[in-house]
Amino acid sequence: MHPFGHSTLGEAMIRQLAIPVRRQGLHDITKRVEEEARRAGLNEGLCTLYIQHTSASLLIQENCDPSVRDDLENWLNRLVPENDSLYTHTTEGPDDMPAHIKSALTAVSISIPLIDGSLALGTWQGIFLWEHRHHAGNRTVIMHLA
Amino acid sequence: MHPFGHSTLGEAMIRQLAIPVRRQGLHDITKRVEEEARRAGLNEGLCTLYIQHTSASLLIQENCDPSVRDDLENWLNRLVPENDSLYTHTTEGPDDMPAHIKSALTAVSISIPLIDGSLALGTWQGIFLWEHRHHAGNRTVIMHLA
Amino acid sequence: MHPFGHSTLGEAMIRQLAIPVRRQGLHDITKRVEEEARRAGLNEGLCTLYIQHTSASLLIQENCDPSVRDDLENWLNRLVPENDSLYTHTTEGPDDMPAHIKSALTAVSISIPLIDGSLALGTWQGIFLWEHRHHAGNRTVIMHLA
Repeated sequence: MHPFGHSTLGEAMIRQLAIPVRRQGLHDITKRVEEEARRAGLNEGLCTLYIQHTSASLLIQENCDPSVRDDLENWLNRLVPENDSLYTHTTEGPDDMPAHIKSALTAVSISIPLIDGSLALGTWQGIFLWEHRHHAGNRTVIMHLA
Repeated sequence: MHPFGHSTLGEAMIRQLAIPVRRQGLHDITKRVEEEARRAGLNEGLCTLYIQHTSASLLIQENCDPSVRDDLENWLNRLVPENDSLYTHTTEGPDDMPAHIKSALTAVSISIPLIDGSLALGTWQGIFLWEHRHHAGNRTVIMHLA
Repeated sequence: MHPFGHSTLGEAMIRQLAIPVRRQGLHDITKRVEEEARRAGLNEGLCTLYIQHTSASLLIQENCDPSVRDDLENWLNRLVPENDSLYTHTTEGPDDMPAHIKSALTAVSISIPLIDGSLALGTWQGIFLWEHRHHAGNRTVIMHLA
């Protein structure tokens, strides 16, 4: 664990976000990221998010209708099911290898421009942590602002 | 809409590209991005593209043989078909939920280094906006240069 | 080929990494990237990797158990098989069109924050070049540090 954080390093351009994750699926982190970005006080710039895991990923998706998130999750679960006889890496549970595959198909880092001090998200875009395991606990997302 | 643009903010390192999109598929935006990058006058740097939508994406692909683009499009349409009985989000048309899934499987942001004032694309690489809906209209890509 | 490199341009923030690739699959480039990043002498920053090809990609994945890599490779080969009757782009060999599709589904660029002078990789994360062709030769990854 690195000894930094926005309370001790006021002007650091790197933030470490601990995201509590209780279940598989999409977790909206838009407000949290927006708040940190605004606090940085940059007018124009680039916000890069990086997730430090190989069984969860980052996703920009529709922020409005929850049925989009449900369908997305169900579709990916059908494409990458548990208990596929192809898997040899099975010691960490039936949701482990699917989680690695899902993370390979989705994003580990995303860069969002900052305009007028805010993230340049489209009207219908939210930022999500996509958890691919059933019982994950905490996930860490590193945020770089420049 | 943000009140910026390269005509009013000559030295802004952010550009907003409006991309007219008439049909589903890959739209080559290489020249447009290259032109803007060169105009910025940076010798070395990083060009980040970010698309403000959840049913279109960014793609670096083969710039030469159009059959690659056709096969890519047809393959993804087969993987993520319309009218799949799994979808519950159906009110915005049969191409809407497939478009969200396709965008989740592809890139929302791409960062390309600048070398000697030009994008460091490989010989066979072009930059594409991948439209996943049939009748999209205009798409917005934000370009950040640093 | 651009006339740069860390021997001639000591303070350049761009590196060109030539990666010898002998077979399809995941090639671990973590040490190589870490070494270059440390050599840059930045305390905090962002390391962006960009691969100049359309039939190989970049991947952050589990760095420990090789069975994860095998399963990942086998799963993707099953999803995107050779000799699919859908392909029309077949002149460059049976592994060519699958390679383009695989590269479209995975990352062409990845940005990793630098903290305390090192890449902020998670404990179980390694950086891989994912080669999608059988006989590729050398691949080029551009590394941008800022």
